[in-house]
Amino acid sequence: MQVALIRYTPEPEATVAAAARLCYSRVGAMEILEKTDPAQVEKLLNHLLSSGHLSPFEHVSFTFAIEGLSRAASHQLVRHRMASYSQQSQRYVSFKKLDWVTPPTVQRKPELASAFQGLIEEVHRLYGRMVEAGVPAEDARYILPNAVCTNLVMTMNARELVHVCSVRLCLRAQWEIRELFTRVKAEVEKVAPRIGAELMIKCDRLGYCDEKESCGLYPTREGAGVKPAATGGPWL
Amino acid sequence: MQVALIRYTPEPEATVAAAARLCYSRVGAMEILEKTDPAQVEKLLNHLLSSGHLSPFEHVSFTFAIEGLSRAASHQLVRHRMASYSQQSQRYVSFKKLDWVTPPTVQRKPELASAFQGLIEEVHRLYGRMVEAGVPAEDARYILPNAVCTNLVMTMNARELVHVCSVRLCLRAQWEIRELFTRVKAEVEKVAPRIGAELMIKCDRLGYCDEKESCGLYPTREGAGVKPAATGGPWL
Amino acid sequence: MQVALIRYTPEPEATVAAAARLCYSRVGAMEILEKTDPAQVEKLLNHLLSSGHLSPFEHVSFTFAIEGLSRAASHQLVRHRMASYSQQSQRYVSFKKLDWVTPPTVQRKPELASAFQGLIEEVHRLYGRMVEAGVPAEDARYILPNAVCTNLVMTMNARELVHVCSVRLCLRAQWEIRELFTRVKAEVEKVAPRIGAELMIKCDRLGYCDEKESCGLYPTREGAGVKPAATGGPWL
Amino acid sequence: MQVALIRYTPEPEATVAAAARLCYSRVGAMEILEKTDPAQVEKLLNHLLSSGHLSPFEHVSFTFAIEGLSRAASHQLVRHRMASYSQQSQRYVSFKKLDWVTPPTVQRKPELASAFQGLIEEVHRLYGRMVEAGVPAEDARYILPNAVCTNLVMTMNARELVHVCSVRLCLRAQWEIRELFTRVKAEVEKVAPRIGAELMIKCDRLGYCDEKESCGLYPTREGAGVKPAATGGPWL
Repeated sequence: MQVALIRYTPEPEATVAAAARLCYSRVGAMEILEKTDPAQVEKLLNHLLSSGHLSPFEHVSFTFAIEGLSRAASHQLVRHRMASYSQQSQRYVSFKKLDWVTPPTVQRKPELASAFQGLIEEVHRLYGRMVEAGVPAEDARYILPNAVCTNLVMTMNARELVHVCSVRLCLRAQWEIRELFTRVKAEVEKVAPRIGAELMIKCDRLGYCDEKESCGLYPTREGAGVKPAATGGPWL
Repeated sequence: MQVALIRYTPEPEATVAAAARLCYSRVGAMEILEKTDPAQVEKLLNHLLSSGHLSPFEHVSFTFAIEGLSRAASHQLVRHRMASYSQQSQRYVSFKKLDWVTPPTVQRKPELASAFQGLIEEVHRLYGRMVEAGVPAEDARYILPNAVCTNLVMTMNARELVHVCSVRLCLRAQWEIRELFTRVKAEVEKVAPRIGAELMIKCDRLGYCDEKESCGLYPTREGAGVKPAATGGPWL
Repeated sequence: MQVALIRYTPEPEATVAAAARLCYSRVGAMEILEKTDPAQVEKLLNHLLSSGHLSPFEHVSFTFAIEGLSRAASHQLVRHRMASYSQQSQRYVSFKKLDWVTPPTVQRKPELASAFQGLIEEVHRLYGRMVEAGVPAEDARYILPNAVCTNLVMTMNARELVHVCSVRLCLRAQWEIRELFTRVKAEVEKVAPRIGAELMIKCDRLGYCDEKESCGLYPTREGAGVKPAATGGPWL
Repeated sequence: MQVALIRYTPEPEATVAAAARLCYSRVGAMEILEKTDPAQVEKLLNHLLSSGHLSPFEHVSFTFAIEGLSRAASHQLVRHRMASYSQQSQRYVSFKKLDWVTPPTVQRKPELASAFQGLIEEVHRLYGRMVEAGVPAEDARYILPNAVCTNLVMTMNARELVHVCSVRLCLRAQWEIRELFTRVKAEVEKVAPRIGAELMIKCDRLGYCDEKESCGLYPTREGAGVKPAATGGPWL
């Protein structure tokens, strides 16, 4: 899997700060942008994040080139609706060469790993035979496995990145999508360190796990002695 | 202000439960709907809400007739984007009779309340003069105050209602929008008691206030002795 | 594939009409609902649809149980973001029995159809061996093909249904998602005939095809003698 | 009114082109970005726009500082939900100085314009008296008129800009919001000429007016001799 940040809103953290200050200011955004120095930006972002005032973070967005992700993971990924995706089409692209992802739990069992590889190669041969026999690529691909790789361009704003990382960096999240957002976080950290630092698993923010069973990293809410709320729980 | 629930997805709580069970089931939604009894529905909704698994709540939506809300409040209301609104137009409706909202803090000061009323009546007279002189209603309305009443039809799904109430039922929220969602909650409780019970202010769920300053209902996070997370805070 | 409409906003067309009339009315939605008769509803919906005033159609939503759709089609389906989905999980459900979709273009070639079936059965055997050997279902499924069936609950409002059908009923759309929305349309027609009638392919509305190449049902824009606009085209 | 483009996705048109090409390509976005020259970008954007393939345009967004817009116009503006807004708060900002917008139709009638100004000044005096008497700014503002100015930061992606301009540049749109998007278009044209050119009124794209009554710029659909579709109309 390769993840590269190819575009982002310039000066992302100053942009968030200016949008936030505008709400409480007599003057407009252009004057605010001129007058806000880096120390104020950091202080303001800390305040916004600790209070959950996240709407100013929508003004900055990040565009990633994602390559070598399995279709198993991409089907999960595109369920996040506050984002934009352009994805390699299995209808229009015919795959003479096939790339795929083998899960580590399979790789660790040599006999199964070998059977896995052999069967995908057999699948690819049947795919090729079908295409040659005039079956459209969009139909031949019905035989292709979830493991097959796909490429995407994905754009998310910073508010949505904070949300998605809170659930997809969880140790219980599917391993491939967790790896994807670990790389996304690393890319964001390079250009927007304060926003990047905020891309964290929800239990890191809560101090406990709000799922039924914890992975062990944090205790559950009950285990942490957090008094149950009226009803429901403090999910993010 | 009048708020009436005029339409909603039938059997809302059974619908949420069926959608949630489908994700973990070998069989489809129709079979699940037949086989799920009310006790299971309640148990499942409790589990979903305590774990923050809220997406099944999107399948049920609630449509409200709202009358007599000020334009001050409606401008705030329509900032919630995961909802559908149809609103009385000040461009196309010409107001021969004017209704408005007087804030309680003004009502409590008789001299100001009287000046407030007198000035709105004067505004209405100028509005009428402008319309008579051929100024389009859409331009004459520039003189109308924020206090003027509007009517809306609003549709929100249950997931968004949970979110919006978590911020708009806050004692620090603007009083009129808080009254609106207090009435929304009362309407939902009549037809979907478990969902209605979940329409609560965020501090009721967290056990503390995550804003900079608390209204006093709950201590702040620091006051409650909740260990600060890595960075940021456990906002909802 | 099975598609059943399991829930919808009661009296959908009267609801749309009431929301639309509210915008131009001095009175609120409750009074409008009482005073609007079916003939007025039909006339108003015709007007809204011919002028493209579609926002009132958001107030009514339709919830479908979808069974036996391939994962190839579901991956396309969930790209429509103005909708809510609950989908059978391949992470949490382990598939002792496997159902799949064979494309008609494959079915029509007996030798390929037989190879297709044989290979999926082989895939299912390896899947079973992996699960037995302790590979988590979420990893074993990497070998499962796009053809495998999934179940969903899907909720869309009427405005989005109009949009999605305009592109997915196209004869150039992927055949399985076209069949899905053909069934969706049939279900909507039973309970909301005017809305159901509006679920149509975009060329039926335009009178010509706005794609580069037409399927032949309608001429292209140039072929139809429609004068090119300043730039761009009259897409829906 | 002042509108300034303060941030945008760098190289917006090349970004759209790369995302679009990815869907049909064996290679990923990074390689495509390297290999696409400006002539190809323009050709591809023309194709996408003439076919209505607009999703790649979501990857680029534009952030504007808007100053001196009336609250009448901002209430309309924020009804567009596929965008992000930060707006000057009338709850938290107390207005010692009041700026407002006088509609041209009022300005043209000196006697009314004078009454309009006088009454707003009187409103401002009462606002000041209320604030001094301890009425919170959030309540005192109920007397403030729609004409009062507001400042915003607004972010929209290019796809939404195309949509919003198609309806808000209409000669029948409210004059102030039309002026806003005329300025937005001018700003976009400076940095993304092909996208800027596509920010056009819907009748420029259709070649006729799809509203009930035309402003005269184009004939209605019937007047243009466009054969009515099965039902409904070719709205954008």
